[in-house]
Amino acid sequence: MGPVRSRIASVSITPVAFEDPPLLNVVGVHQPYALRAIVRVRTDTGSVGLGETYGDEAQLQRLEAVGRAVFGHDVYDLNGLWRKAADALGTGSADAGASFGGMLQVDSAVATAYSPFEVACLDIQGHETGRPVSDLLGGAVRDTVPFSAYLFYKWAGHPGRPDDDWGEALTPDQLVVQAKRMVTAYGFDAIKLKGGVLPPDDEIAAMRALREAFPDHKLRIDPNGGWTVDTSVRVAHELADVLEYLEDPTPGIEGMAAVARETGLPLATNMCVVAFEHLARAVRAQAVGVVLSDHHLWGGLLRSRLLAGICDTFGMGLSMHSNSHLGVSLAAMTHLAAATPNLTYACDTHYPWKTEEVVKPGVLEFVDGSVAVPTGPGLGIEIDEDALGTLHEQYLSCGITRREDTVYMQSVQPGFEPNTARW
Amino acid sequence: MGPVRSRIASVSITPVAFEDPPLLNVVGVHQPYALRAIVRVRTDTGSVGLGETYGDEAQLQRLEAVGRAVFGHDVYDLNGLWRKAADALGTGSADAGASFGGMLQVDSAVATAYSPFEVACLDIQGHETGRPVSDLLGGAVRDTVPFSAYLFYKWAGHPGRPDDDWGEALTPDQLVVQAKRMVTAYGFDAIKLKGGVLPPDDEIAAMRALREAFPDHKLRIDPNGGWTVDTSVRVAHELADVLEYLEDPTPGIEGMAAVARETGLPLATNMCVVAFEHLARAVRAQAVGVVLSDHHLWGGLLRSRLLAGICDTFGMGLSMHSNSHLGVSLAAMTHLAAATPNLTYACDTHYPWKTEEVVKPGVLEFVDGSVAVPTGPGLGIEIDEDALGTLHEQYLSCGITRREDTVYMQSVQPGFEPNTARW
Repeated sequence: MGPVRSRIASVSITPVAFEDPPLLNVVGVHQPYALRAIVRVRTDTGSVGLGETYGDEAQLQRLEAVGRAVFGHDVYDLNGLWRKAADALGTGSADAGASFGGMLQVDSAVATAYSPFEVACLDIQGHETGRPVSDLLGGAVRDTVPFSAYLFYKWAGHPGRPDDDWGEALTPDQLVVQAKRMVTAYGFDAIKLKGGVLPPDDEIAAMRALREAFPDHKLRIDPNGGWTVDTSVRVAHELADVLEYLEDPTPGIEGMAAVARETGLPLATNMCVVAFEHLARAVRAQAVGVVLSDHHLWGGLLRSRLLAGICDTFGMGLSMHSNSHLGVSLAAMTHLAAATPNLTYACDTHYPWKTEEVVKPGVLEFVDGSVAVPTGPGLGIEIDEDALGTLHEQYLSCGITRREDTVYMQSVQPGFEPNTARW
Repeated sequence: MGPVRSRIASVSITPVAFEDPPLLNVVGVHQPYALRAIVRVRTDTGSVGLGETYGDEAQLQRLEAVGRAVFGHDVYDLNGLWRKAADALGTGSADAGASFGGMLQVDSAVATAYSPFEVACLDIQGHETGRPVSDLLGGAVRDTVPFSAYLFYKWAGHPGRPDDDWGEALTPDQLVVQAKRMVTAYGFDAIKLKGGVLPPDDEIAAMRALREAFPDHKLRIDPNGGWTVDTSVRVAHELADVLEYLEDPTPGIEGMAAVARETGLPLATNMCVVAFEHLARAVRAQAVGVVLSDHHLWGGLLRSRLLAGICDTFGMGLSMHSNSHLGVSLAAMTHLAAATPNLTYACDTHYPWKTEEVVKPGVLEFVDGSVAVPTGPGLGIEIDEDALGTLHEQYLSCGITRREDTVYMQSVQPGFEPNTARW
């Protein structure tokens, strides 16, 4: 007797663009629209599964290639799905780094293109069994998942456009205002600052101002490798009593290891360890205390559970990375975090920065800084077809087809260069 | 809307004893009966799931404790099942080593008691979704799972009883006869010798005789830590062209690392790395080239998939360990191995040594050394109630309540001492 099969009958990939404020980082500034792709997988049994990933043009091409390769595929055969994705993309496929605006050197084309299909297959498994995705990942160990406020230095508005609702944030006082608004609205009890934008002493002053304004909150700063080893060590010492962890102060495993040897502060990363092949070297070098997982980048939810198990086994903490994202990603992140016992820190999310959505409201709400794990089958969310259509139209009309933080910044500040250990 | 729940309504734990030949090893000799426990989990929805584990009295007490703790538990909440097992056993629970006849120092009481319940829950998930367990582990990457012949030095029969069907094996020629019979009957293309029983030169001679008789078979020897580092290095050099790997030549991570530095032969282990907490030290010491996984010992099928992912990530090969076992274990091993892409070696099994069974025949057959992955829902097997009853009666009447290879050997050879790096 053979098992019941639900086979993939069609795949739709919908690129969308949503408004994004001018958030500053080491490689430049966020463009006026952030790009994502919504992947929908339909089976011959009538089920629909959802996934969300990066939406730049190279990624869209990869998604189309994988989508063509998985027709007829059994939604439980995830090992086979990976092989088909790898075969469809070949070994010579372009790097996956464009999705990160130049901030990451990523060669995980298979992992990033596979991920939304894996999430969609798990969504379908959940619908067909009446189980939330967290159950398919071993069961939720928490009913709500804590997230962190994500502060950015930013301009008042995009050049040539009206100021946005958040206004300028270039000083410690302005960051405190931004933090107060975000914490009040969402209830976060952890706060992260995207750094590497201003000279280190300015960012130290910002963290001290945040500490003064939020004496009981957990604080983090992430300069995206903007500092030298020496500067990183100095900042680590100066903020030793302020931070819960210091994220990617300096580039590379060797650099991080050199910093780690000089500070007791945990060093977190989403830059020097972004794929399984980086882990052995990082573990041997004792370079990293906390890995920021990301199911979009690491190849889906099951591989992210593997990463979590590796962190547990090798004595590393675990947090979660975020890019600008919509609700399908938030739902998947929440199920994953819920089913991960050793998620030891609140997850990052860009969610408060967006004003547009593709998911029907009512499921993914922030209360006390946390999102309740959806209890319905699968991811527990539904697409709002009108909203998806609107954001797809916006994608078609906005003129942006890839994330280019540096190019956009240079259009405003000619001569700007990305910051790699500049300070 | 909440999901459908299948909750545990009852648990039955049936100790069984099956006839076992006098197989020799470093700590003594197998007793006339091997002990196992068959765990059956029934849900309020009427489903039944199966698990199999060690059957010594300390393990039975642990299983009873876990069984009492899981009433009403949702079969998808495996993270919660682990917590309940841990809570039920407490931190001061006895070591789990008795099940290994003194061969292993194991402190994995929670992992070993949790494992059959996890397997049973996955079996139930499979029955309720119409899916084989391999699908719940990510999908089978192979239709059949290769196993290895498992040769033992042995007496002609248990003292005071008639000779068994296999007869004596204490010389190279006798081992070759044993191997030929086993390979002919099962079709294995890998052959393992349980060593550490005779002086190393005798065992080298045995491996050379096997190589001569089986020029194309993959060969392994496992002296269970019976040799010093120097002897291990010498044997590794002498058998460099004969073996596919050398298993546990010497005790401990440091000892294994010392051997590894002197040989290109992969060193495998089921002794110095038998729990997740051993992995970091073994990786840093570069002590191990191949880990022998074992879902009974490592805490079930999902944790064994984690171990597999760790081996893949850290550049270690993966094989599978076996104790004397029945068909429920064989089915679980087969599903796990099928869904593990990086299972790089044929699995160990004691299966050919037994003459009794609790599973209905027809599903688990060896063809060309491999077992076809069951395609029915769950584990794809059924208990033969009469056979189970017979082996339970045998458990009650045989007088053996724990595995005691050394005590039994000393009853035959007074003065025998277990061999730890004796040679």
